[in-house]
Amino acid sequence: MEKLVEKALEGDPRSMARLISMVESESPFAENLMKAVYPYSGKAHIIGVTGSPGSGKSTLLDKLIGELKKKGKTVGVIAVDPSSPFSGGAVLGDRLRMQGHSLDRDVFIRSMGTRGSLGGLSRATYEAALILDACGKDVVLIETVGVGQSEIDIVKIADTVCLVLVPGMGDDIQVMKAGIMEIADIFVVNKSDKEGAERVATEVNMMLDLLPDRTWRPPVVSTVAERGEGIDALCGKIEEHRNHLKETDEGRKRKYYRLEVEVEEILSREIARIVERAWEEERTTELLEKLADRKIDPYTVAGSLIDRVLGRD
Amino acid sequence: MEKLVEKALEGDPRSMARLISMVESESPFAENLMKAVYPYSGKAHIIGVTGSPGSGKSTLLDKLIGELKKKGKTVGVIAVDPSSPFSGGAVLGDRLRMQGHSLDRDVFIRSMGTRGSLGGLSRATYEAALILDACGKDVVLIETVGVGQSEIDIVKIADTVCLVLVPGMGDDIQVMKAGIMEIADIFVVNKSDKEGAERVATEVNMMLDLLPDRTWRPPVVSTVAERGEGIDALCGKIEEHRNHLKETDEGRKRKYYRLEVEVEEILSREIARIVERAWEEERTTELLEKLADRKIDPYTVAGSLIDRVLGRD
Repeated sequence: MEKLVEKALEGDPRSMARLISMVESESPFAENLMKAVYPYSGKAHIIGVTGSPGSGKSTLLDKLIGELKKKGKTVGVIAVDPSSPFSGGAVLGDRLRMQGHSLDRDVFIRSMGTRGSLGGLSRATYEAALILDACGKDVVLIETVGVGQSEIDIVKIADTVCLVLVPGMGDDIQVMKAGIMEIADIFVVNKSDKEGAERVATEVNMMLDLLPDRTWRPPVVSTVAERGEGIDALCGKIEEHRNHLKETDEGRKRKYYRLEVEVEEILSREIARIVERAWEEERTTELLEKLADRKIDPYTVAGSLIDRVLGRD
Repeated sequence: MEKLVEKALEGDPRSMARLISMVESESPFAENLMKAVYPYSGKAHIIGVTGSPGSGKSTLLDKLIGELKKKGKTVGVIAVDPSSPFSGGAVLGDRLRMQGHSLDRDVFIRSMGTRGSLGGLSRATYEAALILDACGKDVVLIETVGVGQSEIDIVKIADTVCLVLVPGMGDDIQVMKAGIMEIADIFVVNKSDKEGAERVATEVNMMLDLLPDRTWRPPVVSTVAERGEGIDALCGKIEEHRNHLKETDEGRKRKYYRLEVEVEEILSREIARIVERAWEEERTTELLEKLADRKIDPYTVAGSLIDRVLGRD
């Protein structure tokens, strides 16, 4: 175990992959492993890229990786989108394109599941990002699908959140996106050679005008990822945002917020495990029958269970 | 308090509304209140109606209420969809239409929030349904928006789940719906006078063929809610499903599953409160700084907090 962590921290991709598998499978060693790598984390720039299926965010990610590599950076990618070619779920052509990077030692690519079909990022995703960070990746890119809780959760882990939009997605989708307007640091209008691209950019700017003033006004970057256009500008804005976080109080605030969330989530998970064990012992068909017959109520059942767990009885 | 519960159990709408407000605001009396009404619950038929914005499910609900009233049933409605006219968020015409029912003593209408912008049903929604059930409503209708966790959560509370689809929603939406296919008991193709309605019904049946055989094959009902067409048939299928639950082991299984979820959720909420209090005492800027500087890791912080809460230190 110690050896594995050591090799991963040296940058060995196989060892990193094994560590991530351990947190993903909730191995009994996972906690000690995270304690071991934690001191080395906190240096990477963690970038969330979120957008609806069909927004071309995988292609954008692909080009972004290329650009970051050109700048001499090492890159880790975590794809939390089952439809992402990074997850191996796409057509062959996409897969081959991505393989160019995945054979590359400087680029580590990993796909991970969400909690449930529409549910947010799993704890393992956070831990995988921490592992890649600790193992020396300069940049960790997290690709989430723009549906449900995952795109909201991304703010709990990323330094910089990029929201990818495209022209012609229809009004419904724009409405659904309202919740995420406030968490995006950079808006990307991809496929910006298509009709309606300018209107999307204008609408985003209008929506931003309605939000309260903040120290960072999210820029709107136009790209045509397919042809590599605008990627350079996007990289520039990402860097600018990183500098903004460093130079203002905003960066510290976010860091503290994320650390709080971190502790809270570990707490919830641990407590959930303890409660689950207690409930499993208690949960008998007799008890369920009594509940169904309304001879006892679930509040009383839960209350006495908690008393027992907390040693209060 | 005792008087309030008594009056609510007698069917007084104002008292019911106050009880629901108490659970919604997490009043300190909420738990005792729930313990008091719980023995009277378990008789209503709880029906979930879920579907995307624009599927016309509010109109459908409106007609369903009318049909149920005709059959002499008392109805409670909980709208967990911010865009629902039941929530007062829609155009005037819709609101006026709904008011016809809301002035009616036999129909109790209440709108409630979700957890977060895309997050599932709140605990208060479950409790409100229990209250309406206990207070003698024959049917409790819960309207959830077909986006995110809410539509998945509905299975944790409803006896019968109706999923409302419409022709021409585009492929993206159909894909997003994949997760919910397995929890719907009845499929409703609304606006079935529009082009493509037959194709939607066929696709649903094809997807159902792919699912493992179950004792209940979800029927596909065509409606034109706007004109009241198919509502009678829908009511029939809902009743059929209820009888199926009564006559087979399926009903008991679901009841037990829901009671388990019930206890687990109460447990989680209680535990979350205990942890939150403990973490609030512990959470100092000094500690966050130590975490940010990687002098301590969140796993150790969480571990010692739990030990303290459980009295293990």
